[in-house]
Amino acid sequence: MRQIFVIALVAAISVLTSAGDPLMYDSIGVRLVRTSLGQNVSYTMLADLCTSIGPRLSGSAEAAKAVEFTKAKMLQFGFANVHTEPVMVPRWVRGKDEAGWYFDGSGARRPLHIAALGGSVGTPKRGITAEIVEVKTWDALKELGTTVKGKIVFFNRSMDRSLPTPGQAYGQAVDQRSRGAIEVARYGAVAALVRSMTTRLDDFPHTGSTHYVDSIPKVPAAAISTNDAETLSALLRSGKSLTIGMRFSSETLPDVESANVMGELVGTMHPEEIIVIGGHLDSWDKGHGAHDDGAGCIHAIEALRLLKELGLQPKRTIRAVMFINEENGLRGGTAYAEAHHPREKHIAAIESDAGGFMPRGFGVSDSAAYQKLVGFTKAFWTLGADHIVRGGGGVDISPLTSRGVPSLGLNVDTQRYFDYHHSGDDTIDKVSEREMAYGSAALALMAYIIAQEGL
Amino acid sequence: MRQIFVIALVAAISVLTSAGDPLMYDSIGVRLVRTSLGQNVSYTMLADLCTSIGPRLSGSAEAAKAVEFTKAKMLQFGFANVHTEPVMVPRWVRGKDEAGWYFDGSGARRPLHIAALGGSVGTPKRGITAEIVEVKTWDALKELGTTVKGKIVFFNRSMDRSLPTPGQAYGQAVDQRSRGAIEVARYGAVAALVRSMTTRLDDFPHTGSTHYVDSIPKVPAAAISTNDAETLSALLRSGKSLTIGMRFSSETLPDVESANVMGELVGTMHPEEIIVIGGHLDSWDKGHGAHDDGAGCIHAIEALRLLKELGLQPKRTIRAVMFINEENGLRGGTAYAEAHHPREKHIAAIESDAGGFMPRGFGVSDSAAYQKLVGFTKAFWTLGADHIVRGGGGVDISPLTSRGVPSLGLNVDTQRYFDYHHSGDDTIDKVSEREMAYGSAALALMAYIIAQEGL
Repeated sequence: MRQIFVIALVAAISVLTSAGDPLMYDSIGVRLVRTSLGQNVSYTMLADLCTSIGPRLSGSAEAAKAVEFTKAKMLQFGFANVHTEPVMVPRWVRGKDEAGWYFDGSGARRPLHIAALGGSVGTPKRGITAEIVEVKTWDALKELGTTVKGKIVFFNRSMDRSLPTPGQAYGQAVDQRSRGAIEVARYGAVAALVRSMTTRLDDFPHTGSTHYVDSIPKVPAAAISTNDAETLSALLRSGKSLTIGMRFSSETLPDVESANVMGELVGTMHPEEIIVIGGHLDSWDKGHGAHDDGAGCIHAIEALRLLKELGLQPKRTIRAVMFINEENGLRGGTAYAEAHHPREKHIAAIESDAGGFMPRGFGVSDSAAYQKLVGFTKAFWTLGADHIVRGGGGVDISPLTSRGVPSLGLNVDTQRYFDYHHSGDDTIDKVSEREMAYGSAALALMAYIIAQEGL
Repeated sequence: MRQIFVIALVAAISVLTSAGDPLMYDSIGVRLVRTSLGQNVSYTMLADLCTSIGPRLSGSAEAAKAVEFTKAKMLQFGFANVHTEPVMVPRWVRGKDEAGWYFDGSGARRPLHIAALGGSVGTPKRGITAEIVEVKTWDALKELGTTVKGKIVFFNRSMDRSLPTPGQAYGQAVDQRSRGAIEVARYGAVAALVRSMTTRLDDFPHTGSTHYVDSIPKVPAAAISTNDAETLSALLRSGKSLTIGMRFSSETLPDVESANVMGELVGTMHPEEIIVIGGHLDSWDKGHGAHDDGAGCIHAIEALRLLKELGLQPKRTIRAVMFINEENGLRGGTAYAEAHHPREKHIAAIESDAGGFMPRGFGVSDSAAYQKLVGFTKAFWTLGADHIVRGGGGVDISPLTSRGVPSLGLNVDTQRYFDYHHSGDDTIDKVSEREMAYGSAALALMAYIIAQEGL
């Protein structure tokens, strides 16, 4: 009787821990996160990137150093096939001279916290001084029409702070930043000024890309802090006309050669089947680019290192890719897809580009992949990353997604993300050691499950 | 055919949205969090408490002001039965003179980041200067025995950073702080020095309560920052003897009258059945007591306000209680239980005392309550608070728990909690507006579900 019980128990345990069992993977998740927390490599590496190199605008000397830095880390950790692949990237520079000002009720000149938007042309050397007109909608701009001629249009539609997901609020407001310069120039305005994309009231201007079209004159475009936006709006409510000034020397220089960086754990059973994990190595030029997206790059490197450290050999190849030039060009993501697909068989791509915060789950672009992965929900319980939902991957892997590769995004807790995003406040001291460690472990676990189970 | 389909659809919707349906509550959760995020009352109120009053050590003038502040807020928001109930609390004071120092290799005097532990006796006026001995375990102390006579014992066992839940690491290390002074005095040591309870390396000493027993001499006890602990440990490793000094004038004065504060939404159907929600109003005297536990008090007030704002009338009474004196006495929690139980029927008590971070779920002390509430897991999906687990309530409600009241703890993401806990770094700037808003909504939703569904 006792023997039968033992046999039954062994059989039960073997079923519970057979390949494919979410609970077995949950215990692997615990090992991953304990190692990640205990060794604290994610944060140490990110702090090194942030403080020894700093922000990594495409084409800059710092971006070139970051290419060398991440390649050296991958070699140091003993990854396979570590190499760089050249990519020509745009080279926009802010220039040194950047200032904004307004005249308060008493006529005194007061400074604005201002930042040229990425891609913006510079102002004339002496700057632009003009009356501003506030708008919150495209319809309002259309109604104003050519009355804005010679003026500066001030886009002041806030991100909707009541939306549970701040990314959704960003999506509803960022059109002001991305096409404000085009739309105001249609009516003869001389510049576009945009309220920073954050729900917080603070003094940081948040930059980000703005666009032009060839058929319309290119006018300068800049962001001001949300506090400044509130101040200007309050002054305008008094009904008086308000004059502001801005001066910056940003410009677009010829393209520069840069690179994607990659390294692998080669699969033991199906080495030809690739799972890409990565983030983007470039950042805007304010702050450290710590959350956006130093964190994602380090998550990917550390995910491979953790698997190696624990002797977890994947059946399929997991490749960490540091994509260059997500912020203002997507040249790295595009070049990767063109060079590697369909030449190599990509079974999945996972991007981490939402910051070094606590993991909450994964968004899965592909219906069949979602159906399979949702079956592994319990594997992510201890890591708290068990919200497996339909959703996108990331921008860098979008060229793979559009070629049919199932793509995933590491979903982290983004409540603080837009506090820092694209601003001088995106610095290493805003990153929690422990939260970074968790993100790396969650990414490692998902990559490992796909490597073992296929998709 | 079409009509039958419509009838079937209406019937299906009615089943899906009937009372007790988790999905209906999830949509209420969305309304709660949108209102909470949009109005931003949680953060505004907490910032007001933190900056206009500051830390709220039991018996202090600031604690008295906080009693008035929270009572005024409850009246302002129109809660029912708003009142205070007097509680005698201990009155420990740090005193103004607090310093620590050591002598480095060259004999130069260097400062230590030091804080007397709560409840500690003061040092002699000129301080204590003595050789230090480092220990990491009770066994090591026992082995040293009376060789520590006349010396200062330095407890330097780190919190285990590899544990996924930092509270668990705290639980494994805090005995050094709570009974270090007793144990070293047994062997004739003149003081206890404790490494701060945090996994981070920084310059903040983290205070917290220490205890004495009447039969053993009371020696001074203090915490030093983790960076200082590393420095002292490194100096000791060189094998030379190391002398340090400490001086502080802390003392325990006679008890003072303070109060618990409470207010209600009265139940429409079973007003006599009470659900207590709350946190503790007192804090240590460093920083603002923002996360510990200003956040929990504000969560409770805002939870009631949100329900009222949305016209969600609970069937049972929800009572917000600001407990006084959790940190060094538990007098408020004890007084509440003695005065109200079993005189009133308490069906549940929920405490928020883990900081103003993102909610992740609830710990439920009682097996039957857990079984019922786990059925509402999906109600907490959108709020991301869907990890309903077995676990404790909080310290303030422990006197209710031990009287058999089912108790719950709002579980939030505590990865950053011990970075700030009991230190000068627990200030309002460490609190995210959006994370605070989420916590209030999660607490409101759980209280409302219990009010509607019973337990």
